[in-house]
Amino acid sequence: MNEVNFVQASNLKEKPDVSKIGFGTHFTDHMFEMTYTEDKGWHNPQIIPFSDITISPANATIHYGQAIFEGMKAFRQGDKVVIFRPLDHLNRLNNSARILDIPQVDVELVHTALKKLIEIEKAWVPAQRGQSLYIRPFIYADDGFLGVSVGKSYKLYIILSPVAAYYSHGFSPVKIMVEDTYVRATQGGLGEAKTPANYAASLHAGLVAHKKGYDQTLWLDGVERKYIEEVGSMNILFKINGEIVTPELDGSILSGITRRTVLQVAKEWGYPVSERRISIDEVKDAYKNGTLEEVFGSGTAAVISPVGVLGYKGEDMVINDGKIGPFAQKMFDYVTGVQCGAEKDIHNFTEVVAEV
Amino acid sequence: MNEVNFVQASNLKEKPDVSKIGFGTHFTDHMFEMTYTEDKGWHNPQIIPFSDITISPANATIHYGQAIFEGMKAFRQGDKVVIFRPLDHLNRLNNSARILDIPQVDVELVHTALKKLIEIEKAWVPAQRGQSLYIRPFIYADDGFLGVSVGKSYKLYIILSPVAAYYSHGFSPVKIMVEDTYVRATQGGLGEAKTPANYAASLHAGLVAHKKGYDQTLWLDGVERKYIEEVGSMNILFKINGEIVTPELDGSILSGITRRTVLQVAKEWGYPVSERRISIDEVKDAYKNGTLEEVFGSGTAAVISPVGVLGYKGEDMVINDGKIGPFAQKMFDYVTGVQCGAEKDIHNFTEVVAEV
Repeated sequence: MNEVNFVQASNLKEKPDVSKIGFGTHFTDHMFEMTYTEDKGWHNPQIIPFSDITISPANATIHYGQAIFEGMKAFRQGDKVVIFRPLDHLNRLNNSARILDIPQVDVELVHTALKKLIEIEKAWVPAQRGQSLYIRPFIYADDGFLGVSVGKSYKLYIILSPVAAYYSHGFSPVKIMVEDTYVRATQGGLGEAKTPANYAASLHAGLVAHKKGYDQTLWLDGVERKYIEEVGSMNILFKINGEIVTPELDGSILSGITRRTVLQVAKEWGYPVSERRISIDEVKDAYKNGTLEEVFGSGTAAVISPVGVLGYKGEDMVINDGKIGPFAQKMFDYVTGVQCGAEKDIHNFTEVVAEV
Repeated sequence: MNEVNFVQASNLKEKPDVSKIGFGTHFTDHMFEMTYTEDKGWHNPQIIPFSDITISPANATIHYGQAIFEGMKAFRQGDKVVIFRPLDHLNRLNNSARILDIPQVDVELVHTALKKLIEIEKAWVPAQRGQSLYIRPFIYADDGFLGVSVGKSYKLYIILSPVAAYYSHGFSPVKIMVEDTYVRATQGGLGEAKTPANYAASLHAGLVAHKKGYDQTLWLDGVERKYIEEVGSMNILFKINGEIVTPELDGSILSGITRRTVLQVAKEWGYPVSERRISIDEVKDAYKNGTLEEVFGSGTAAVISPVGVLGYKGEDMVINDGKIGPFAQKMFDYVTGVQCGAEKDIHNFTEVVAEV
């Protein structure tokens, strides 16, 4: 019943030089599509040629934002193509769906469809270390009327984009500004979901940070404006006096797949790990007394992103002399090693989905 | 240069029986479209046949929610068509644009285009009192790549939908649930903008309220969870001991056009008016000591929406015996009277835009 149909594109695109393209600018020849209606539920799963999509000008998502997405990556390992933790990502898609009142998808079916899509598009998976095929599943309410209510029809797509190594000039620390004016999400809001609202709320602060010379924004909680939340495109971790500390999952931050990878591996390596509330004042104090050893982000895009400078209220904390810390380096090497096959994958983080 | 072109639809639709259709389900024959690109700015303003629109599957708004909208109404006054406070709505569109980092529009140009559109579609403006032609301008980021950043290309549309009287069974009080779990918007967030994020954040609480037998949700502030904010589709006002009290515009609620109309008229009628923080405890106390005379919402859709029941933490406050209060009735009659031409429009709230 739910077999995934395949409509082949009549013309295949020329593949770009991945090292010269930005993130998410080029897409492969095909995409996966599935439709939800009240009477049929999720139906008509099919792989079709990549093309523009058509919506009503009264589309519920354009007006009221009922949408969610995921982001994961496929890598070349010699003659194999693997995806990093695909089921974790698809289960998180369903968690976002729950928060936005979008009907749950059949993870097994979408997983099957994703593997079929990657098999078809395997020639698009870049072979160089650091490069990957970015996988973007997304769901949006497709109703074409203007009432504010939970949608009755949805579309799910998976689109694929070959992406360069995140660090085009080599793995290097970023400058992060701690945001004390704008709020991304708060308790009781949508912060735990991968949904457009959280990104819309981050745009202006991102501009302000860039103007001040920072790469990204570190969010504080919306209530007390003192507890660390996340960086918007990644979770944040601190190494303080030997311990790995990261904000607990309190409903206002994303439950990062790379975050849980890092925490699991760090524990196995023997580091004390703590998921708890951590205030910006505690970070400042640790900086002052010399116990703030490392700060780094974790996320699908960059895997590990060492923070060289943390700016707060006009003052810059320079972390580990602005250099990559040894823990961040070791974790980056390990996780990217598992992804490219240089490290043995003892946790089964990767799943082989195609042979080239 | 910025003349508004007109491409006429080849087939005109049959007009529906407005009394039998829901809100925002039917659209007129034409719509206004304008395009923004970095090199040309806003350009190519044109009125074209109403039709579906085409977006990239990587569309920035579907993924990251950079969009805004407005809602206003056109009414028949005998042989004339008027719009209620169109420039206030278009200026508020630009305020939302500022918050979402969307390029400002030329209000004069959009105003001209709107009048031309209504002139073309004037036969769609329903003639019965209470019915209207709902006007929905909206702007969305139209970029087709997956980076989280402020868009470089945008589309603006204005679509028109004939709508029935809001109170199909007569002007009557609603049941409102005070929401103490979920948060719509908070200080430092997007609450002041008409943007999808705020509506996405309201969907789940709306479902919960409906399941508990309430019509809508009254939001509390996201920090202390005690100060009254708004109802999501309308602002909220209280009549306490003869005074009209409404939450101040603090950045997390919408600056309603009907709200400002009501406050201005109430002052002229000699009522004391106060825009200030008001806590749910103050409302409860006023209810208990008998000084909570009326509660009502204000918004473009309903104009005035008397609240008959206010539920908070499982207890219902029955306002004015569940009946429409005299102030709400008087204000409803006055504003709808101005809109339909039964009342003299001494404030120039309405603008004549077409003759039928």
